[in-house]
Amino acid sequence: MFWAFAGLVALVAGGRGLIADEGQWLPEQLRQLDWGKLRERGLELQPKEIWDGEAGLLSAAVNINGCSASFVSGDGLVLTNHHCGYAAINANSTTERNLLRDGFVAPGFAAELPARGYRVSIVRRIEDVTAQIHDAAEQAGDDPRARWEAVQRKVRELVAEGERQPNTSVIVTDYYQGREWRRIYRTEFQDVRLVYAPPAMVGEYGGDVDNWMWPRHTGDFSFFRAYVAPDGSPAPYHPNNVPYRPERWLEVSQEGVDAGDLVMVMGYPGRTERYLSSTLVAARESFFFPRRLNLYTRLLDAWQRATAASPEDHLKIASRRKSLANRQKNAEGMVWGLHRNQVVARKQAEEKELQAWIQSDPQRSELYGDVFRQLEALDFEEIARQERDFVLTEMVRRSAYLALGSRLLRFAEERGKQDLDRAQGYQQRDLPRLQAVVKGFSRSLVPSVEVETLAILLAEAQKLPDHQRLQGLDLWLQEVQREGESLQQLALRLVLGTRLNQTEFRMQLMQDGHPDVEDSRDPMLALCLSLSADLADMRAFQSRLAGMRMDVGARWIEAQQAWRGGRFYPDANRTLRVSFATVKGYEPRDGVFHTPFTSVEGMVAKHTGTEPFDLPDSVQKAARNRNLGAWTPNGKSSPPVCFLSDADTTGGNSGSPVVDGTGRLVGLNFDRVFENVAGDYGWNPARSRNIAVDLRFILWHLGAVMPAPRLLQEMGVVPALTEAKGTSLKF
Amino acid sequence: MFWAFAGLVALVAGGRGLIADEGQWLPEQLRQLDWGKLRERGLELQPKEIWDGEAGLLSAAVNINGCSASFVSGDGLVLTNHHCGYAAINANSTTERNLLRDGFVAPGFAAELPARGYRVSIVRRIEDVTAQIHDAAEQAGDDPRARWEAVQRKVRELVAEGERQPNTSVIVTDYYQGREWRRIYRTEFQDVRLVYAPPAMVGEYGGDVDNWMWPRHTGDFSFFRAYVAPDGSPAPYHPNNVPYRPERWLEVSQEGVDAGDLVMVMGYPGRTERYLSSTLVAARESFFFPRRLNLYTRLLDAWQRATAASPEDHLKIASRRKSLANRQKNAEGMVWGLHRNQVVARKQAEEKELQAWIQSDPQRSELYGDVFRQLEALDFEEIARQERDFVLTEMVRRSAYLALGSRLLRFAEERGKQDLDRAQGYQQRDLPRLQAVVKGFSRSLVPSVEVETLAILLAEAQKLPDHQRLQGLDLWLQEVQREGESLQQLALRLVLGTRLNQTEFRMQLMQDGHPDVEDSRDPMLALCLSLSADLADMRAFQSRLAGMRMDVGARWIEAQQAWRGGRFYPDANRTLRVSFATVKGYEPRDGVFHTPFTSVEGMVAKHTGTEPFDLPDSVQKAARNRNLGAWTPNGKSSPPVCFLSDADTTGGNSGSPVVDGTGRLVGLNFDRVFENVAGDYGWNPARSRNIAVDLRFILWHLGAVMPAPRLLQEMGVVPALTEAKGTSLKF
Repeated sequence: MFWAFAGLVALVAGGRGLIADEGQWLPEQLRQLDWGKLRERGLELQPKEIWDGEAGLLSAAVNINGCSASFVSGDGLVLTNHHCGYAAINANSTTERNLLRDGFVAPGFAAELPARGYRVSIVRRIEDVTAQIHDAAEQAGDDPRARWEAVQRKVRELVAEGERQPNTSVIVTDYYQGREWRRIYRTEFQDVRLVYAPPAMVGEYGGDVDNWMWPRHTGDFSFFRAYVAPDGSPAPYHPNNVPYRPERWLEVSQEGVDAGDLVMVMGYPGRTERYLSSTLVAARESFFFPRRLNLYTRLLDAWQRATAASPEDHLKIASRRKSLANRQKNAEGMVWGLHRNQVVARKQAEEKELQAWIQSDPQRSELYGDVFRQLEALDFEEIARQERDFVLTEMVRRSAYLALGSRLLRFAEERGKQDLDRAQGYQQRDLPRLQAVVKGFSRSLVPSVEVETLAILLAEAQKLPDHQRLQGLDLWLQEVQREGESLQQLALRLVLGTRLNQTEFRMQLMQDGHPDVEDSRDPMLALCLSLSADLADMRAFQSRLAGMRMDVGARWIEAQQAWRGGRFYPDANRTLRVSFATVKGYEPRDGVFHTPFTSVEGMVAKHTGTEPFDLPDSVQKAARNRNLGAWTPNGKSSPPVCFLSDADTTGGNSGSPVVDGTGRLVGLNFDRVFENVAGDYGWNPARSRNIAVDLRFILWHLGAVMPAPRLLQEMGVVPALTEAKGTSLKF
Repeated sequence: MFWAFAGLVALVAGGRGLIADEGQWLPEQLRQLDWGKLRERGLELQPKEIWDGEAGLLSAAVNINGCSASFVSGDGLVLTNHHCGYAAINANSTTERNLLRDGFVAPGFAAELPARGYRVSIVRRIEDVTAQIHDAAEQAGDDPRARWEAVQRKVRELVAEGERQPNTSVIVTDYYQGREWRRIYRTEFQDVRLVYAPPAMVGEYGGDVDNWMWPRHTGDFSFFRAYVAPDGSPAPYHPNNVPYRPERWLEVSQEGVDAGDLVMVMGYPGRTERYLSSTLVAARESFFFPRRLNLYTRLLDAWQRATAASPEDHLKIASRRKSLANRQKNAEGMVWGLHRNQVVARKQAEEKELQAWIQSDPQRSELYGDVFRQLEALDFEEIARQERDFVLTEMVRRSAYLALGSRLLRFAEERGKQDLDRAQGYQQRDLPRLQAVVKGFSRSLVPSVEVETLAILLAEAQKLPDHQRLQGLDLWLQEVQREGESLQQLALRLVLGTRLNQTEFRMQLMQDGHPDVEDSRDPMLALCLSLSADLADMRAFQSRLAGMRMDVGARWIEAQQAWRGGRFYPDANRTLRVSFATVKGYEPRDGVFHTPFTSVEGMVAKHTGTEPFDLPDSVQKAARNRNLGAWTPNGKSSPPVCFLSDADTTGGNSGSPVVDGTGRLVGLNFDRVFENVAGDYGWNPARSRNIAVDLRFILWHLGAVMPAPRLLQEMGVVPALTEAKGTSLKF
């Protein structure tokens, strides 16, 4: 309800329900926006040009493994962030041929490298399936868990039905805490290849130090390409596959935008909690994020120590480490922001007002009178087991072995059922992906990292309070831990004893079904099995809770919408959204203003020669040699690197295309500023700023730093290459 | 010659010799400035209103113990920085009645506290004595040291002659490296009393962390008062003395200034080196400042450890510690700035140009052809002994015992001479001050601090290279250090053995003349005596060098002035100067702008509850209670605290009055930004910014935080107190 606070500010300012640039809008909501105002601000497109129900500019905004991206040529060239392509670049790197460190340019189609496990998808159609889902719940009776399971089954049915269409991948998902449901028809490309990556010291320049920060000088971009079978249909990797030819792609702008210009950000924001109760926000602030920060900091330290002596090991876990470091700094920003912005106190004040508004009218009291009490009951149930569920979740996420083992055990359990009865992720349609994970498991496995991780997580479980124990784990520990054996020693014994590091063993387990632990005598699988009951218990609780929220949560949102009036957008849920924004700076603290553009000159000034500020010679040389292309704005001495706008973004928006008022690509969203990390709990005009790589930097890199004339030509920007202004950089 | 670089920029920009706001102008130079331009920028005063040769606005700009300050009432009320008043506030504090921590308000004249050792002086007349000095040098012949000593004797004669006028204190000093000389007639007030000090957590809010930094929220101000004998003449402290009634004082402005407004800074800048050769700047960058930074950091750590257990000891050395911490961070800024601004490379390029300009003309070659070679020879002589002289200087500055002992020994030596032959500082006129120092010595003495300091300095001396040994010290050490005794143990033995901590012993030594070290058997004095020859050698070298610079340095400056043309100002030398400036922010680095004002709101936001960000309750309460007086600018929610302008300032400008175009007081200079620490070697329009306390903050503190209605009334600001705008602070 921090949103509501922001709304209040707007009410004070002009009586409208929403602030200009707040909102992650669904494609179907676009028509309802204030187009007069948007046109005034510089938008030259009609709503239907952005999305007409089946196509539009949004067809060029693709999803790539949970990140956002865009088609930027008629040959299926995809532009996304370096950090989104990181796993693929990492997987194609060896200490001898280190693409991560040195960057990569494919000189031709044949040299483009398979990005195993990568998928690119576009949205074809969005269908309202609310009635079908609600009917299914209705028919399941009163038990919340039964209701939720019925809903899940209906979801699987709707997916299966939709996927009977050729070359279609379907997702069914809810909005407004289960009040509405949509079926989304997508085309998914399974053959994705790496085309271009800058060196890490461009793509992640500034590293963890600058991550979530401004001023920023990170060239966070990489190029991929979607391939299809010669007949044009999506297909797994095959050497005979050909580049996909999309119907829509984005034209790139060489002129860029200026402060004050309107921009539009399209993409797949992952998760926000704008309508969360003050009770749960308080739990996030006092327990969840501080605990994450603490655990992740210790894990990162341990991983650093465990791989310090081996460059190979360091490279193997680079992608995992980067992702965890990102979560760690996110947690830090959340702790800081929730406190600094006094989100809980503001939500409490708002809830009081909303409650008074409900009570002041008999009809409203009838509808929503009990919603606060009911919501609070749910929240307290969640909080009562938050420590236990936190530790359990982290165990099967941070430990590669426990993650894999638990997944294999779950699959063995689910495979015995009819396909439509299986849990999502374990159905027939999911098998290729699951198989790929099981097969490729060893690639990022470093035994010493697993020992440290396991030891830390087991210690976390041991510290749980009496009323929140993981019972299966406790029993296992009692049985397995030897007299005087430390958790570190135990973890080492598990890692040395397991055969899960052997590809054949893993594939065999997946094929055989439920592994007989006694037979396999695998100590790691034994631990996973001991966690099974605790995991099943957590899932059952979550199903019951989801079933109850289907009713309570939906009414909670409804009450808020009725109270606010005006336009209303749902929390982010990984589906396609659009945000309108203005290029602008902000005041992070008294006496300081963050200006909206950084430059190559500033990038060079940050260079220290030590990671993460060790700029490649190629960049320094290109900058020094006045080789600045046509991308240096008038009155500036070097091309822009990054820019700020007040777009409403969150994780998942990484790689989102940022377009100008004519729909031309001007940037690539990749981060938010530190002051806006807690923005997931409320947009704020004063501090909600996203960070984009300026497209002019990307063009400069392709033109003058690590040349890729083929790609520039493909994007139609060749002529500009020769129009260098000859402005010199002054260092 | 970094100045020259700045000059070049101006030449490129508009062909003028100086950038608009560069320059610390002598009062006599004011008429030469571009008054048309200044009037355009908002200056409403005529040159003669600022200084007519004997009086003007500048008469209100006073010197207080090396700091600047101003008269702000007809009753001799003096406004200066908290850090300038620090020693007096510190000396009046005990752990029971801690004025430093709690602040101080004198409810009436009778309660105002003597500030022992404080002197306030105003300038009455400035006289050109260049001819007399140069004649004296001429008559002394060719030996540089003899020339310099003759000059020094002439200086003493001119001082003595001037001070025959009643109530007059005189200084004679050089400008442009000895090319010009002035005799300055001043009135000096010896009875100075503390009137008002905010708590330390206002006056030094942000402490060493924020020192030399922006954004800044330090209320760095304190009030003193000059007292005189009932007949109006300056006199030492006496209970019957009465407040001095100055002819000129500054009217305070309640409206303040805005970004873009013209301001004028008046005061006594201490020392700049704008015309230093690239050779010596390189030595500052590679040796002097890094060495300072290293030594001071270790001393501060040692002092911290030595006083950690005792609040009394901590308070005793508070003033010394603060001053050293300030020097330490200054050294850090110098190291950073000299490197970052590439001052040496720029100076070298400039020197090359200047040299070419000289060689291109026979007459110029005749005049200045040899100046580079001569200057370089001097510079190399200085560099050849820099390590030795650095350590020796630091020994007699950082160790309280060595400082005192050396001074006593020098006095014993000088007192045998005719008064006019004695070195400055040891003449009859200097005795009261010397006596006060000797008498009050124990007040800031902490034995454990002295042990640590001595041990560190002795170790420094031991590390000196073979060709730069301190010979007297080496001999002493050979004789005194016991087998296996560490320097720490030796230092402890000296501190335990000396009687210099006894006031009677010190006074006796001063009275008796040359102390017989064998008789006194004082181990600390023995060490001081061993340093005497090394000190005398250093002084002799410096005299010779000064004698040579009288010629070479003066011609060096002349050549530069001829080359540049246009207006020209001398390096700072602790004499009265004026700087014109604009209130404005700056860009410390790419993507960041420092806006020119901070606010009480930002001050409260910085509060953490832990020093140095532990804001007193009184401030927080006044802020929360909307008790904001009339000093909150329109459109803001709280009074300003500090502001930036591009005035040309340096150390010594602390406490300088900042006045608006009508001459009314709007602020109190107290610092520079970090990017401008190295500005002593060159002003730069992009980063030369000084920091002032906004007068509206001071009025707010006197009105609403720690009320002093008497002082507000005295300054004529009572009416505004009741005009509170009632704007509320949003925290």
